[in-house]
Amino acid sequence: MADSPNCDLKSLSPLQLFERVTEQGEKVRALKAGKAPKDEIDAAVRMLLSLKLSYKTTTGQDYQAGLPPKDLLLINNGTTKEEDEDLVDPWNVQTSNAKGVDYDKLIVRFGSSKIDTDLINRIERAIGQKPHHFLRRGIFFSHRDMDQILDAYENKKPFYLYTGRGPSSQAMHVGHLIPFLFTKWLQEVFDVPLVIQLTDDEKYLWKDMTIEKAYEYAKENAKDIIACGFDVNKTFIFSDLDYLGTSAGFYKNIVKVQKHVTFNQVKGIFGFTDSDCIGKISFPAIQAAPSFSSSFPQIFNGKENIQCLIPCAIDQDPYFRMTRDVAPRIGQPKPALLHSVFFPALQGAQTKMSASDPNSSIFLTDTPKQIKTKINKHAFSGGRDTIEEHRKYGGNCDVDVSFMYLTFFLEDDDRLEQLKQAYTSGELLTGELKKVLIETMQPLVAAHQERRKQVTDEIVKQFMTPRKLAFEF
Amino acid sequence: MADSPNCDLKSLSPLQLFERVTEQGEKVRALKAGKAPKDEIDAAVRMLLSLKLSYKTTTGQDYQAGLPPKDLLLINNGTTKEEDEDLVDPWNVQTSNAKGVDYDKLIVRFGSSKIDTDLINRIERAIGQKPHHFLRRGIFFSHRDMDQILDAYENKKPFYLYTGRGPSSQAMHVGHLIPFLFTKWLQEVFDVPLVIQLTDDEKYLWKDMTIEKAYEYAKENAKDIIACGFDVNKTFIFSDLDYLGTSAGFYKNIVKVQKHVTFNQVKGIFGFTDSDCIGKISFPAIQAAPSFSSSFPQIFNGKENIQCLIPCAIDQDPYFRMTRDVAPRIGQPKPALLHSVFFPALQGAQTKMSASDPNSSIFLTDTPKQIKTKINKHAFSGGRDTIEEHRKYGGNCDVDVSFMYLTFFLEDDDRLEQLKQAYTSGELLTGELKKVLIETMQPLVAAHQERRKQVTDEIVKQFMTPRKLAFEF
Repeated sequence: MADSPNCDLKSLSPLQLFERVTEQGEKVRALKAGKAPKDEIDAAVRMLLSLKLSYKTTTGQDYQAGLPPKDLLLINNGTTKEEDEDLVDPWNVQTSNAKGVDYDKLIVRFGSSKIDTDLINRIERAIGQKPHHFLRRGIFFSHRDMDQILDAYENKKPFYLYTGRGPSSQAMHVGHLIPFLFTKWLQEVFDVPLVIQLTDDEKYLWKDMTIEKAYEYAKENAKDIIACGFDVNKTFIFSDLDYLGTSAGFYKNIVKVQKHVTFNQVKGIFGFTDSDCIGKISFPAIQAAPSFSSSFPQIFNGKENIQCLIPCAIDQDPYFRMTRDVAPRIGQPKPALLHSVFFPALQGAQTKMSASDPNSSIFLTDTPKQIKTKINKHAFSGGRDTIEEHRKYGGNCDVDVSFMYLTFFLEDDDRLEQLKQAYTSGELLTGELKKVLIETMQPLVAAHQERRKQVTDEIVKQFMTPRKLAFEF
Repeated sequence: MADSPNCDLKSLSPLQLFERVTEQGEKVRALKAGKAPKDEIDAAVRMLLSLKLSYKTTTGQDYQAGLPPKDLLLINNGTTKEEDEDLVDPWNVQTSNAKGVDYDKLIVRFGSSKIDTDLINRIERAIGQKPHHFLRRGIFFSHRDMDQILDAYENKKPFYLYTGRGPSSQAMHVGHLIPFLFTKWLQEVFDVPLVIQLTDDEKYLWKDMTIEKAYEYAKENAKDIIACGFDVNKTFIFSDLDYLGTSAGFYKNIVKVQKHVTFNQVKGIFGFTDSDCIGKISFPAIQAAPSFSSSFPQIFNGKENIQCLIPCAIDQDPYFRMTRDVAPRIGQPKPALLHSVFFPALQGAQTKMSASDPNSSIFLTDTPKQIKTKINKHAFSGGRDTIEEHRKYGGNCDVDVSFMYLTFFLEDDDRLEQLKQAYTSGELLTGELKKVLIETMQPLVAAHQERRKQVTDEIVKQFMTPRKLAFEF
């Protein structure tokens, strides 16, 4: 029945419906322009109205030409974004709450799953050791299909890790280390291959930067990543600008993803506009492709069905929602994900940190003195205005940036709990808490700098050379 | 004066103006949504109205949100396409005229230059021999910057040739050989390197075809191209799917082009829509990049400033108009072009031929008998309905497909002129003209098949291996 298409439209996503309406509208215009018979035009118009009705029923919005359903996931989840909700995408993180983004709400909006006690316990059983404090403390708080990864691990099936960084400058701060420190731990406990993408092409496209500069930053950033202690026999680090021209599999996966994603989709997911360059518009496929093992024939011996696990900050999720949507259509497994919270700026948790503001965080190049000054001067305090009030009412750990930083970097659970209680009760003053943070960060950054010094250009080259890793596939 | 932006708007192209209007509209909306002060909103609105006026003055059209100026070149040239004009883009060639597309009009619309007697004479002087009959007979009829190439040649400066093919099927017809036969001649007389792009990625993106199939067609088509007689020491043939993963320079140029072309631009040039996949949208950069010598570091020793000459059918010009627009902005020389007319279908010159209709042309796999049958049965005749009428009024060479084919393939100028006169006078009958064509095409196709048989997989591999050619740079 050509006139009632609704029967088979229920299974369509809002975006697919949007595209059906658009196509039908174009058909009607073509029929009219071509002076087609009246009954043919009438039938096409009826179909168009019917499609528009389905669109409205599904999305709760009227169809508007050229305006695809904005945030697909909001609609898919049957929820709508409130005016005062947080904004989170790969380029923006905004919240009005001093505690930072509301991650429980984000899980609902993004349609991911919370990393709960059951999952943490299952990980502990699987690896036979205490899970990383990033897991225990909710720093990695959300996931997609982590159960599948554990199934694979328990059944001795291979998987691999994929993470990355956009090398926008030479300067990395301690927050940039979070995904790498966690990935290193995952690699050690699961003993799996790891690929690390440096999206120098993305930075060239988005910033006012030459290709040469972007590639230089990629190599500099690789040094900081390597200094986290990755095993060269198990880790492949690559610059897109470099690796695309040396891999037999990478471009093929990119073009496969690019065939299965429309402009409407990237417009809905990433907010691209008609004035954006075609490089930006097609870039999401380049971040998607390393999720498929066939992008690394040298590592996986050409095997195509090896599952991927991606540890990353939650703002990168849009790329991988798109990837997971495309994967089954190109005959590949969906990548699993582990999402971290954002690392707060020294000034407070309202925004993601900016690498361009030297005072917004502790940088990996900071001297002990710089670290001390920055923390004392800029770390937002949850303490009270006067010592008397602080002793009486206590400090607020939920908004205190020094305490937040300690949650990331102080590994000793008991000590952290002590500090929390002492600060909350008013026993510990802001200056004293800051002193603990200074004493935690100074040796940590110094040790990183020491390790980084050992990373020669030759070692970088080894990590960045496409090669077989110490695994059999 | 913020309120009168017109002073500096005169130099903007219609598209740039369009983008300025769009941006300003967004700004006004943002100010209103953000409840900005009234005078700030008023100023922004005045600016918007002023920009819209400039847009109208420049384009003669009202600004419509989401609808960029359609055919930029028409506007740039101050002409508009009439209802009955020919439609020519990389995927469509349509004309209502039995003589085929009006190429003089196309030169004006595309803003290219006619290949006139002066230019042909200059080529003759430069190479010291008679120019190819494709030049003498107006089959290559239009160019861009061919003078620059001759300047370079006369000053002993290097340049190179670039042409290509979209491998949409295994079957190639004789029309597909035109650019290759001409390119081979150019290579011989100028003795320069030649690169031939097989856009298997394009075919994968546009057709219902696997990556593997597209690549297989590329290799099969390479055999027919090689059978034209190219010198392996001077020619590099590449599949995009293959070469992108082996070249240190190709992807870098692609991403450079992709940074400097917006979706609005490819929408205007190629007619892409929001429902098109992001692969199609970014593909024009992949056809553009071989215009820059740094895409072939193995051939040009990394040299970046070597000029490129592209012989191609006129329908490919939109890609290279875009390339020439981008080139100076990425510090590269603009490629020069030589444009050919379309090869007519046996059924008549109204449309470009289709590789999917076996009767639409003579295929390179046709037997002598098939060639004879096809020409006798399908070649559109400019002869009269009866022998008597034909003897009395004569035939019409302008619409006779057999005569057109002879213009392409009968090298003997005197013989062709004789045939024309005899046919036009009525002395020569349609059947007799067809017999000449059959006798021309049968040995030509048979010889091609003989040469193709010699092209082994090993030879294809040699041509398709990135390597140094027999030139010093």
